[in-house]
Amino acid sequence: MTLHPGSASTPDPTGVVDLNADVGESFGRWQLGDDDAVLPHLTSANVACGFHAGDPLTLRRTCETAVSHGVVIGAQVGYRDLAGFGRRYLDVPTDELAAEVLYQLGALDAIARAAGGRVAYLKPHGALYHAVSRYEEQAQAVLDAVLAFGGLPVLGLAGSPFLAAVRSAGLEAVAEGFVDRAYQRDGTLVPRSAAGAVLTDPVVVAAQAVELARSGEVRSLCVHGDSPGAPGLVAAVRAALAEAGIPAGAFTSA
Amino acid sequence: MTLHPGSASTPDPTGVVDLNADVGESFGRWQLGDDDAVLPHLTSANVACGFHAGDPLTLRRTCETAVSHGVVIGAQVGYRDLAGFGRRYLDVPTDELAAEVLYQLGALDAIARAAGGRVAYLKPHGALYHAVSRYEEQAQAVLDAVLAFGGLPVLGLAGSPFLAAVRSAGLEAVAEGFVDRAYQRDGTLVPRSAAGAVLTDPVVVAAQAVELARSGEVRSLCVHGDSPGAPGLVAAVRAALAEAGIPAGAFTSA
Amino acid sequence: MTLHPGSASTPDPTGVVDLNADVGESFGRWQLGDDDAVLPHLTSANVACGFHAGDPLTLRRTCETAVSHGVVIGAQVGYRDLAGFGRRYLDVPTDELAAEVLYQLGALDAIARAAGGRVAYLKPHGALYHAVSRYEEQAQAVLDAVLAFGGLPVLGLAGSPFLAAVRSAGLEAVAEGFVDRAYQRDGTLVPRSAAGAVLTDPVVVAAQAVELARSGEVRSLCVHGDSPGAPGLVAAVRAALAEAGIPAGAFTSA
Amino acid sequence: MTLHPGSASTPDPTGVVDLNADVGESFGRWQLGDDDAVLPHLTSANVACGFHAGDPLTLRRTCETAVSHGVVIGAQVGYRDLAGFGRRYLDVPTDELAAEVLYQLGALDAIARAAGGRVAYLKPHGALYHAVSRYEEQAQAVLDAVLAFGGLPVLGLAGSPFLAAVRSAGLEAVAEGFVDRAYQRDGTLVPRSAAGAVLTDPVVVAAQAVELARSGEVRSLCVHGDSPGAPGLVAAVRAALAEAGIPAGAFTSA
Repeated sequence: MTLHPGSASTPDPTGVVDLNADVGESFGRWQLGDDDAVLPHLTSANVACGFHAGDPLTLRRTCETAVSHGVVIGAQVGYRDLAGFGRRYLDVPTDELAAEVLYQLGALDAIARAAGGRVAYLKPHGALYHAVSRYEEQAQAVLDAVLAFGGLPVLGLAGSPFLAAVRSAGLEAVAEGFVDRAYQRDGTLVPRSAAGAVLTDPVVVAAQAVELARSGEVRSLCVHGDSPGAPGLVAAVRAALAEAGIPAGAFTSA
Repeated sequence: MTLHPGSASTPDPTGVVDLNADVGESFGRWQLGDDDAVLPHLTSANVACGFHAGDPLTLRRTCETAVSHGVVIGAQVGYRDLAGFGRRYLDVPTDELAAEVLYQLGALDAIARAAGGRVAYLKPHGALYHAVSRYEEQAQAVLDAVLAFGGLPVLGLAGSPFLAAVRSAGLEAVAEGFVDRAYQRDGTLVPRSAAGAVLTDPVVVAAQAVELARSGEVRSLCVHGDSPGAPGLVAAVRAALAEAGIPAGAFTSA
Repeated sequence: MTLHPGSASTPDPTGVVDLNADVGESFGRWQLGDDDAVLPHLTSANVACGFHAGDPLTLRRTCETAVSHGVVIGAQVGYRDLAGFGRRYLDVPTDELAAEVLYQLGALDAIARAAGGRVAYLKPHGALYHAVSRYEEQAQAVLDAVLAFGGLPVLGLAGSPFLAAVRSAGLEAVAEGFVDRAYQRDGTLVPRSAAGAVLTDPVVVAAQAVELARSGEVRSLCVHGDSPGAPGLVAAVRAALAEAGIPAGAFTSA
Repeated sequence: MTLHPGSASTPDPTGVVDLNADVGESFGRWQLGDDDAVLPHLTSANVACGFHAGDPLTLRRTCETAVSHGVVIGAQVGYRDLAGFGRRYLDVPTDELAAEVLYQLGALDAIARAAGGRVAYLKPHGALYHAVSRYEEQAQAVLDAVLAFGGLPVLGLAGSPFLAAVRSAGLEAVAEGFVDRAYQRDGTLVPRSAAGAVLTDPVVVAAQAVELARSGEVRSLCVHGDSPGAPGLVAAVRAALAEAGIPAGAFTSA
C-alpha cells in the first residue's frame, strides 16, 4: 500500500508501530465505547479533554486505566461542542482556539499526572482533525497551543498538510493510518458516507494494519474505539502484528 | 475587630497583608468586572477556571495582565454551572467534584504558565466557598484535588471549618476577611439579603481593610471585583494600607 | 400492597392503569435506552426536554415514534445539568426554576405538535422529582410554570407532599408507583444504595405491577426506561396486566 | 439610497416602518445591553432563545417588558453556542438545525404567551443570519422549523438569497436594513473589520434610518441593541422618523 509516494512522513527507524484509539469519551450518565476492554491492547490512548466529550471523572478513570496498562496518554483535543461531539466544523477565531486547546492540554495533563502519567502527545479530534489540514489558521492555533504548553509530538493523517505544518513549527509529526477505514487509490480515505467506508471484519482490519505497518509510511495505526466491535478489532490487530513479527510500541515515552 | 477569638488563623508574622479579588470572570461576549483596572492594585488574583465563569481566552489575557503586574495567580474553582455563575449549591458526588477541581487547576495552570506565571493557590468560588464549610465531603473533594495537584496554599474564610480541614490535610491555610462586606458581632458576615450587607463607600471599605489587617486574624483581604466601583475600592484600600504603614504583599510566591 | 393508607391519591374509577417510562434521553453522539423498543409498550412517555438530557433532534424523533404508537407525551422536566443528568440537587432560585420549566414545556410542546401530538402532562425528573417534595419553593416553581403554560396534569410519587401541592394548586395530580423498585413496609422506596433496591426479574416486576394496579393507590406505573432490560420489563408488565384483566391506558388524552 | 435595484423586497404599502433590535441577550450573571431603555422605542423585539444567549428568566422578563410596551415579540434563533454568542459558523446537519430552531421557537413562545404575547416572527441571529444566505441547507432547516411551527413572517437582509428562500417556502419575507452599519454602493454592508463599518453618531444613524425608510426597500429598520449607545440611537431614530412624517409600526400583530 502506498499512501503518499514521496511524502515526508517519518516511519520509525526501529520498525516499531504504535496502535492508538480514542478513549475517555463517555460523558456523565452516557457511556461510549468499552475503554476497559480496548485500553489493554493499545500503546497510545487519545483521551478526550472535556470539550467534545469526556467529563473530568471519566478522564481520571481513563488515565488511571491507561497508566495501569503502561499505555501512553495523548490529548484528544476538540471543538467546544458537546452537542455535536466535536464533529461539526466550528469557525473559531485563532486566538480563542489556541486558548481552548491550551486549556484542554492543561486540564488533561493535571489529571494524567495525578494518575501517574502525563500528556505525552496531541491529536485533534473530529471536525478539528480535518479542519487543521484545510484551514491554516486553525492548524496554527493548535500548534501555538502545543508550543505554549512546552512542545509535544503531534499525531495526524499521513501525508496531510497538517503534518507538514507540525514539522514547520519545529514539532515532531507522527503519521498515522486507519486500520478500519477503506482507502482510495490516491491514499485518501473513502468518505464515511460511501458504502464500504468503514471496515468491520477483524480479518480485513488486521490485514490492513499489517500492510500499513509494513508500508513504512505510518508510525501509528488508529482504530476507532467507539464501535461495538472495537475491543475485538484492536485485539485482532495486536495479534496480527505479533504474528507478522512487527513489534508494537508507543512512539513516545509515557 | 475580633473576628474569631481563639481561632487558629495564622497571620503573617511579617505584618504583610495580601489583597485578593476575583478576576477573569467574563465569558465570551459577556464582560464582567474591569479586570484591567482592578488587577494593578491586587497582590493576588483569583482567576476563574471556566466552570462557573471565564472562557479560555479570557483566562489567558487575565493571566498575562496579572503576570505583567507581578500579581500572584490563584485558581478560583467553582461548580460546573455557567447559568448560575457557581452561586447555586450543587450536590456533586465527592469523586466527581475532586476530578472537576483537578481539571480546573490543570487548565488554568497551563494557561498561567504560558503567560509566565503558575497557579500558586486555590480559592473556592461562590456556593462552593460556603459548601466546603458545611459539607465535609465537598471540602474533602477540593482538598483531594489540591493534593493530587501536588499541594497548594488554600484561601478561605477566617475561622471557618474549611480552613481547619485545610490544615488537617497538611496544606497551608490562608485566612481572609472581606473589606466590602459588613460583619456581625460574632465575626460572621451579614447575609447578602440584609440591608447594609455590602459596603460601597471607599472610605468605609478602606477603614475596614486597615482594621482587618491590624486584627492579625487574616493574611488576605478580599474585595469583590465585579462591582462597578471595584477599581475605586481596591485603589482606596491600597492607599489606606500604605498610609497606615501596613505593607501589602502576596502570601505566596508567583 | 398498601402504599399510603388514607392518602388522598386518586385511582382511576374505570380501573384503567397507565404505564410510563422516561424516553428521549439520548444526547448527541450518546445513546441511552432503547426507545424504539420501549415506546410501543407504554401508554405515556416522559420525554426529556433538553436540560438534563435530550437534544432537539432526539426529542423530535422520540415524539414522532410516540405519536405513531398512540402514546401520550409528557414533559420530563429537569435541572439544567447535562453533566449530572439532572440527578444532583441544584439550589435554583424559584423564579429561575419556574422560567426554566416553562421554557422546557414550550420547547417540547412545539416539537410534539410538529409530530402530531402535544405535551399532555408534566413529570419532574431525577433530583427535581425528589426536591419538589422536600422544598416547597421548588414545588411552587414547577407548578407556577405549569399554570403559566395553561395547566396540565402532573405525575408524581403516590402519597408524596408534591402531589398534595399539585392538588392545592388546582391541578390534576396523578399518583404513580414504581414497578421495578423495592418498597419498604411504610410505602417508601428502598434507597438505591441498598441491596435489592432495583428489581430486574421480569416475573417479580410484573407481579409488583399487578399488585400496584390492584391497590387502587396509583393511576400510573413507572418503569425505568434506561436499563438494558427495559424493553423486556415493559413487555412483561403489559402482558401481566392483560392476563390479570387490568386494562392499560393513558390517564389523559394525547 | 438604492439597496438592491429590482429586488423583490416588499415595502409596506401603508408607508409604516418597523424598528427592531436584539434584546434578551443577558445570560445568568452577565448583563448585555440595556433592554429596559431600548425596548420602549422599538416596534419589534428580537428576543434571544437561549441557544446563543438568554436564560429563561431573562427571556421571561424581556417578554413581559415587551408586552407592557406593546412591542411585538420575535424569536431571535441562533446556533447552540453560548461561548461564541452564535457568531461563529457551525456546520450543523439540516435535521439537527431544524429541530434546534423548532425547540427555540417553542421555548420562547411559551414564555411569551405566559407574558401575554406570542412569538410573532423569526429572525436568525449572528453567524446563522449570514449562513442562511450562503448555505441553502441551513436556510431550508430554518424554514422547515418555521413551517413545522405553523408558519411565521421571517425577517432578513433586504435583497438577500435567504429572503428569496423565505418567499419560495410560501412564508412572508420581511426585508430589513441596518441604521447603524455603513452600506457599500452595491447595497451590501461594509464589513465589520473595515474602518467606519459601524455608525455611532445619532445624527448619522437617524439620517440613514429616514433614508432607508423612504427608499421603500425595507419594511424594518434594525438597530444593534447591545452597544452602550443603543438607547440613544433608537430614541434618535424614532424622533427622526416622527419628524419626517414616517409612521413607525410593527410589520405584524402582537
